[in-house]
Amino acid sequence: MHNFDLFLPTKLIFGKDRLSELPEVLRPLGSRILITYGGGSIVKSGLLDSVKKMLRDFTIFELSGIEPNPRITSVRDGVTVCKKEKIDILLAIGGGSVLDCTKNIACGVFYDGDPWDLVLDTSKITKALPIVDIITLAATGSEYDAGGVITNLEKKKKRAIIHPMLIPYASFCDPTLTYSVPAWHTAAGAADIMSHTFEQYFVRDGNILTDGMCEAMLRTVITMTPAAIKDPDNYEARAQLLMVSSFGCCNLLCIGRTPSTWPCHAIEHEISAFHDITHGVGLAIITPHWMRYSLNGETAAKFAQYGRNVWNITEDDNMKAAEKAIDKTAEFFASIGIPSKLSEVGVTDEHFEKMADHIPECWASLKDSLVPVDRDGVLEILRNSL
Amino acid sequence: MHNFDLFLPTKLIFGKDRLSELPEVLRPLGSRILITYGGGSIVKSGLLDSVKKMLRDFTIFELSGIEPNPRITSVRDGVTVCKKEKIDILLAIGGGSVLDCTKNIACGVFYDGDPWDLVLDTSKITKALPIVDIITLAATGSEYDAGGVITNLEKKKKRAIIHPMLIPYASFCDPTLTYSVPAWHTAAGAADIMSHTFEQYFVRDGNILTDGMCEAMLRTVITMTPAAIKDPDNYEARAQLLMVSSFGCCNLLCIGRTPSTWPCHAIEHEISAFHDITHGVGLAIITPHWMRYSLNGETAAKFAQYGRNVWNITEDDNMKAAEKAIDKTAEFFASIGIPSKLSEVGVTDEHFEKMADHIPECWASLKDSLVPVDRDGVLEILRNSL
Repeated sequence: MHNFDLFLPTKLIFGKDRLSELPEVLRPLGSRILITYGGGSIVKSGLLDSVKKMLRDFTIFELSGIEPNPRITSVRDGVTVCKKEKIDILLAIGGGSVLDCTKNIACGVFYDGDPWDLVLDTSKITKALPIVDIITLAATGSEYDAGGVITNLEKKKKRAIIHPMLIPYASFCDPTLTYSVPAWHTAAGAADIMSHTFEQYFVRDGNILTDGMCEAMLRTVITMTPAAIKDPDNYEARAQLLMVSSFGCCNLLCIGRTPSTWPCHAIEHEISAFHDITHGVGLAIITPHWMRYSLNGETAAKFAQYGRNVWNITEDDNMKAAEKAIDKTAEFFASIGIPSKLSEVGVTDEHFEKMADHIPECWASLKDSLVPVDRDGVLEILRNSL
Repeated sequence: MHNFDLFLPTKLIFGKDRLSELPEVLRPLGSRILITYGGGSIVKSGLLDSVKKMLRDFTIFELSGIEPNPRITSVRDGVTVCKKEKIDILLAIGGGSVLDCTKNIACGVFYDGDPWDLVLDTSKITKALPIVDIITLAATGSEYDAGGVITNLEKKKKRAIIHPMLIPYASFCDPTLTYSVPAWHTAAGAADIMSHTFEQYFVRDGNILTDGMCEAMLRTVITMTPAAIKDPDNYEARAQLLMVSSFGCCNLLCIGRTPSTWPCHAIEHEISAFHDITHGVGLAIITPHWMRYSLNGETAAKFAQYGRNVWNITEDDNMKAAEKAIDKTAEFFASIGIPSKLSEVGVTDEHFEKMADHIPECWASLKDSLVPVDRDGVLEILRNSL
């Protein structure tokens, strides 16, 4: 077993009718709040208004328009407001993108240069504003982890920023706030949760506990996603999806395991850096192709274990069980309405070479993945996904 | 799904060769440390000396002799030292008992009356010293939870103290420190971990994630305990046991589920309040009898699920699978050297009535257990265990 650290100081406040606790959670942190959010769905739904009413004793500022693949320009805007208005607390309302952007703002406030510097070099992070969030999408798990992903469009770069100071102080997870998530984003979120799990499950060695947790995460998603898409107000389905999403990136799934290199995430973030597609959709498209690339005589046993414990495949032969499991994975993504080819979401092969070049620089070398993925491997997975 | 809160701010520092990080973890917390420990095995093993050498820049005090079922008298001694010596940090070295006692000391320091008052009424807890620990036994999970159990021998009472301020600041979990744990305590620790899991798994409703986590916890313990007993220096076995033990009482296993009433723990803590037996041994003896008491047409499906997912039982009939699973559980405890009757560890039926009377007062009403356990039920389980 590998050594590990686990540090999850976020107060996870889960369930319906919990938002009334927001003022008492915020009060010890200060009085001047910047609310960050995205395209305005929380305005339409009335959530923003009801939160502001609850917080009438606080001084509220707003930063809206944070993009689905959040950009460094929004981070800069947020930092400017925080410095000018002497903000005490960041309150992010939305999905992972809003939170990712807010994390970069939180540390950017205490840095004199451009916040993109902190993305490139997290050792420059010295302090961060406390972040509280109200999560409205079951997907990234950003509400319970220390990382975010930021896009710099000028440089065509998308990079992760990860630092223990960036983990939220408290996260409100109310499943009823995800009722309004349309089928497309419910499916994309499900793919994101599954991909987080795959990245940590398909590593060179695991252990009984985390294998079991990963398999339970996957069984939850494949059971609950169709139910949530069919009946968007199904509380149980929305709640189980939201609950498992929080554990996707918090490091619990990888304790004691070989550290993962997150190959699908590395490849997909490159795709969406160039094409601005929905992250979860990109992941769902490339994942079965990464699985086929990684299946061989040595890895068949793990893919077969996945098939047996997640898809109830009864096939005795490991290779056959593994192939069936990969087919089941692709069929599942299709069944929840996700296209199976990158070309269907407007991606061409124009930038594939550049993407392959960026991966070792922006993400990680994929030589320690379950099966090493070199530059040719990245191109093979991309071309097979086209 | 039930609403829940999850708050796990402890820094879990897991693995071999991590103790050298102790000084840097302690430094921000102060300079005056009270080291708390038990019967002296850490003196014999040299662990205490090597820790003190590492901490030569700190001012060290010691409280030794904390009992296996820690007593309020030890808590009082600790509080006296802390007040007199203006202690900044408590450093607990040992198993769950040492930590449980240390938690009560941590809050007792900031209370003017007898620390037993805080056990009886945790609303009186206003502040607590930071606790860092070096855990030497895979069992209670006290290194990653907010609770402790204290015995008041004068009153023949054993009670839990649970408060968010009592969760350790940091826990060092080095599996090599558990190599010297003898077979008896390895087995008792395993039974404790399994019992924590059972208490949260066998509830009226669960969910896919936590069912899967519980089953993985149980598979880990039944696989790794015999290996650790056979070869005490088996790193992988010791590491997997120590890792799963930390999750036993931290609330992760019960998120979204019906709150558990912990019937086996309530009954066993009564037994050891009167007889001072090893907690895990008592649990292992009564657990199969509690399972048989709780098995009926309605609960058979859950016990069968346990049998299939933990013991690989292939029986289709739920009731038969359930009965086999309970038999397997009892056989497992016997196979790791735990007696199957309370009479074998010196318990008589003399105090059974008093124990049954104490349970609703000291622990909880067991009417919301998987199957309600009333006073007669407690007596039935105790008598069947004799």
